[in-house]
Amino acid sequence: MYGLIAKMIAVPGHRDALIDLVLAGSAGMPGCVSYIVAKDAESSDVIWVTEVWDDEDSHKASLAIPAVKEAIGKAMPLIAGFEKGATTIPVGGVGL
Amino acid sequence: MYGLIAKMIAVPGHRDALIDLVLAGSAGMPGCVSYIVAKDAESSDVIWVTEVWDDEDSHKASLAIPAVKEAIGKAMPLIAGFEKGATTIPVGGVGL
Repeated sequence: MYGLIAKMIAVPGHRDALIDLVLAGSAGMPGCVSYIVAKDAESSDVIWVTEVWDDEDSHKASLAIPAVKEAIGKAMPLIAGFEKGATTIPVGGVGL
Repeated sequence: MYGLIAKMIAVPGHRDALIDLVLAGSAGMPGCVSYIVAKDAESSDVIWVTEVWDDEDSHKASLAIPAVKEAIGKAMPLIAGFEKGATTIPVGGVGL
Protein backbone atom coordinates (compact mmCIF):
# COMPACT_ATOMS: atom_id res chain seq x y z
CA MET A 1 0.00 0.00 0.00
CA TYR A 2 0.92 3.66 -0.45
CA GLY A 3 0.27 6.42 2.07
CA LEU A 4 0.63 10.13 2.55
CA ILE A 5 0.53 12.38 5.59
CA ALA A 6 0.11 16.02 4.58
CA LYS A 7 -0.30 19.28 6.47
CA MET A 8 -2.31 21.99 4.71
CA ILE A 9 -2.41 25.55 5.99
CA ALA A 10 -5.62 27.42 5.17
CA VAL A 11 -5.83 31.12 4.51
CA PRO A 12 -6.92 32.46 7.93
CA GLY A 13 -10.68 32.20 8.41
CA HIS A 14 -11.15 29.76 5.51
CA ARG A 15 -10.33 26.38 7.07
CA ASP A 16 -13.93 25.16 7.15
CA ALA A 17 -14.55 26.11 3.51
CA LEU A 18 -11.30 24.40 2.52
CA ILE A 19 -12.24 21.26 4.46
CA ASP A 20 -15.59 21.14 2.65
CA LEU A 21 -13.82 21.29 -0.72
CA VAL A 22 -11.26 18.62 0.22
CA LEU A 23 -14.03 16.32 1.45
CA ALA A 24 -16.18 16.97 -1.63
CA GLY A 25 -13.34 15.83 -3.87
CA SER A 26 -12.46 12.77 -1.81
CA ALA A 27 -15.51 10.57 -2.37
CA GLY A 28 -15.41 7.59 -4.73
CA MET A 29 -11.74 7.61 -5.70
CA PRO A 30 -10.74 4.15 -7.05
CA GLY A 31 -8.07 2.47 -4.91
CA CYS A 32 -8.53 4.85 -2.00
CA VAL A 33 -8.52 2.76 1.17
CA SER A 34 -8.49 5.61 3.69
CA TYR A 35 -8.62 9.39 3.30
CA ILE A 36 -9.04 11.17 6.63
CA VAL A 37 -9.41 14.94 6.85
CA ALA A 38 -8.84 16.47 10.29
CA LYS A 39 -8.47 19.86 11.88
CA ASP A 40 -5.33 20.45 13.92
CA ALA A 41 -6.55 20.73 17.51
CA GLU A 42 -4.13 23.51 18.40
CA SER A 43 -3.81 25.66 15.25
CA SER A 44 -6.98 27.13 13.73
CA ASP A 45 -5.54 27.27 10.20
CA VAL A 46 -4.07 23.77 9.92
CA ILE A 47 -5.66 20.74 8.25
CA TRP A 48 -4.17 17.24 8.24
CA VAL A 49 -4.93 14.77 5.46
CA THR A 50 -3.80 11.18 6.02
CA GLU A 51 -4.24 8.90 3.05
CA VAL A 52 -3.91 5.18 2.25
CA TRP A 53 -4.10 3.88 -1.30
CA ASP A 54 -3.86 0.37 -2.64
CA ASP A 55 -0.85 1.65 -4.64
CA GLU A 56 0.86 4.85 -5.82
CA ASP A 57 -0.65 4.61 -9.30
CA SER A 58 -4.16 4.86 -7.84
CA HIS A 59 -3.15 8.02 -6.05
CA LYS A 60 -1.66 9.53 -9.20
CA ALA A 61 -4.76 8.55 -11.21
CA SER A 62 -7.01 10.24 -8.65
CA LEU A 63 -5.51 13.61 -9.54
CA ALA A 64 -7.06 13.30 -13.01
CA ILE A 65 -10.60 12.62 -11.76
CA PRO A 66 -12.83 15.57 -12.82
CA ALA A 67 -14.37 16.03 -9.34
CA VAL A 68 -10.90 15.99 -7.76
CA LYS A 69 -9.52 18.46 -10.32
CA GLU A 70 -12.51 20.73 -9.75
CA ALA A 71 -12.11 20.58 -5.96
CA ILE A 72 -8.36 21.32 -6.22
CA GLY A 73 -9.07 24.28 -8.51
CA LYS A 74 -11.57 25.75 -6.07
CA ALA A 75 -9.35 25.00 -3.06
CA MET A 76 -6.12 26.61 -4.31
CA PRO A 77 -7.11 30.21 -3.39
CA LEU A 78 -7.90 29.06 0.16
CA ILE A 79 -4.52 27.34 0.70
CA ALA A 80 -1.80 29.45 2.30
CA GLY A 81 0.73 26.63 2.55
CA PHE A 82 1.32 22.94 2.19
CA GLU A 83 3.78 20.67 3.98
CA LYS A 84 4.26 17.04 3.02
CA GLY A 85 4.56 15.27 6.33
CA ALA A 86 5.57 11.89 4.97
CA THR A 87 5.25 9.31 2.25
CA THR A 88 4.44 6.02 3.91
CA ILE A 89 3.98 2.30 3.39
CA PRO A 90 0.87 1.37 5.42
CA VAL A 91 1.21 -2.14 6.86
CA GLY A 92 -1.89 -2.69 8.93
CA GLY A 93 -4.23 -1.57 11.65
CA VAL A 94 -7.86 -0.66 12.15
CA GLY A 95 -9.76 0.94 9.27
CA LEU A 96 -7.80 -0.47 6.38
CA MET B 1 -13.83 12.71 17.10
CA TYR B 2 -10.29 12.73 18.45
CA GLY B 3 -7.18 11.99 16.43
CA LEU B 4 -3.46 11.60 16.79
CA ILE B 5 -0.60 11.59 14.30
CA ALA B 6 2.58 10.19 15.85
CA LYS B 7 6.06 9.46 14.59
CA MET B 8 7.88 6.59 16.31
CA ILE B 9 11.58 5.95 15.77
CA ALA B 10 12.62 2.31 16.15
CA VAL B 11 15.95 1.17 17.45
CA PRO B 12 17.86 0.50 14.20
CA GLY B 13 17.07 -2.95 12.80
CA HIS B 14 13.98 -3.42 14.96
CA ARG B 15 11.26 -1.60 13.03
CA ASP B 16 9.49 -4.75 11.86
CA ALA B 17 9.42 -6.25 15.35
CA LEU B 18 8.11 -2.96 16.74
CA ILE B 19 5.41 -2.80 14.06
CA ASP B 20 4.29 -6.32 14.96
CA LEU B 21 3.94 -5.31 18.61
CA VAL B 22 2.05 -2.10 17.81
CA LEU B 23 -0.34 -3.99 15.55
CA ALA B 24 -0.81 -6.79 18.09
CA GLY B 25 -1.94 -4.27 20.67
CA SER B 26 -4.25 -2.34 18.32
CA ALA B 27 -6.99 -4.88 17.71
CA GLY B 28 -10.39 -4.57 19.39
CA MET B 29 -9.97 -1.24 21.20
CA PRO B 30 -13.42 0.19 22.05
CA GLY B 31 -14.06 3.54 20.32
CA CYS B 32 -11.16 3.12 17.90
CA VAL B 33 -12.41 4.20 14.47
CA SER B 34 -9.08 4.11 12.64
CA TYR B 35 -5.58 3.07 13.71
CA ILE B 36 -3.17 2.92 10.80
CA VAL B 37 0.43 1.77 11.22
CA ALA B 38 2.80 2.64 8.39
CA LYS B 39 6.49 2.55 7.60
CA ASP B 40 8.10 5.82 6.54
CA ALA B 41 8.99 5.29 2.88
CA GLU B 42 12.29 7.15 3.15
CA SER B 43 13.65 6.37 6.63
CA SER B 44 14.13 2.72 7.62
CA ASP B 45 13.69 3.39 11.35
CA VAL B 46 10.52 5.52 11.29
CA ILE B 47 6.96 4.35 11.91
CA TRP B 48 3.86 6.55 11.58
CA VAL B 49 0.71 5.82 13.59
CA THR B 50 -2.40 7.80 12.62
CA GLU B 51 -5.35 7.32 14.89
CA VAL B 52 -9.03 8.30 15.01
CA TRP B 53 -11.17 7.70 18.11
CA ASP B 54 -14.79 8.46 18.76
CA ASP B 55 -13.53 10.67 21.62
CA GLU B 56 -10.45 11.37 23.76
CA ASP B 57 -11.78 9.30 26.67
CA SER B 58 -11.79 6.18 24.49
CA HIS B 59 -8.17 6.79 23.63
CA LYS B 60 -7.22 7.27 27.29
CA ALA B 61 -9.17 4.13 28.28
CA SER B 62 -7.32 2.10 25.64
CA LEU B 63 -4.07 2.63 27.49
CA ALA B 64 -5.47 0.54 30.37
CA ILE B 65 -6.42 -2.46 28.20
CA PRO B 66 -4.24 -5.43 29.25
CA ALA B 67 -3.24 -6.33 25.67
CA VAL B 68 -2.30 -2.70 24.99
CA LYS B 69 -0.32 -2.41 28.24
CA GLU B 70 1.47 -5.67 27.42
CA ALA B 71 2.31 -4.51 23.88
CA ILE B 72 3.59 -1.16 25.16
CA GLY B 73 5.76 -2.91 27.74
CA LYS B 74 7.32 -5.17 25.12
CA ALA B 75 7.69 -2.30 22.64
CA MET B 76 9.49 0.19 24.89
CA PRO B 77 12.99 -1.38 24.49
CA LEU B 78 12.60 -1.19 20.69
CA ILE B 79 11.65 2.52 20.65
CA ALA B 80 14.53 4.97 20.18
CA GLY B 81 12.34 8.06 20.00
CA PHE B 82 8.83 9.36 19.78
CA GLU B 83 7.48 12.57 18.21
CA LYS B 84 3.87 13.64 18.53
CA GLY B 85 3.02 14.95 15.10
CA ALA B 86 -0.33 16.39 15.97
CA THR B 87 -3.50 16.13 17.99
CA THR B 88 -6.38 16.42 15.58
CA ILE B 89 -10.14 16.69 15.24
CA PRO B 90 -11.08 14.33 12.40
CA VAL B 91 -14.04 15.70 10.43
CA GLY B 92 -14.62 13.26 7.61
CA GLY B 93 -13.30 11.31 4.68
CA VAL B 94 -12.95 7.72 3.52
CA GLY B 95 -12.44 5.01 6.11
CA LEU B 96 -14.14 6.62 9.09
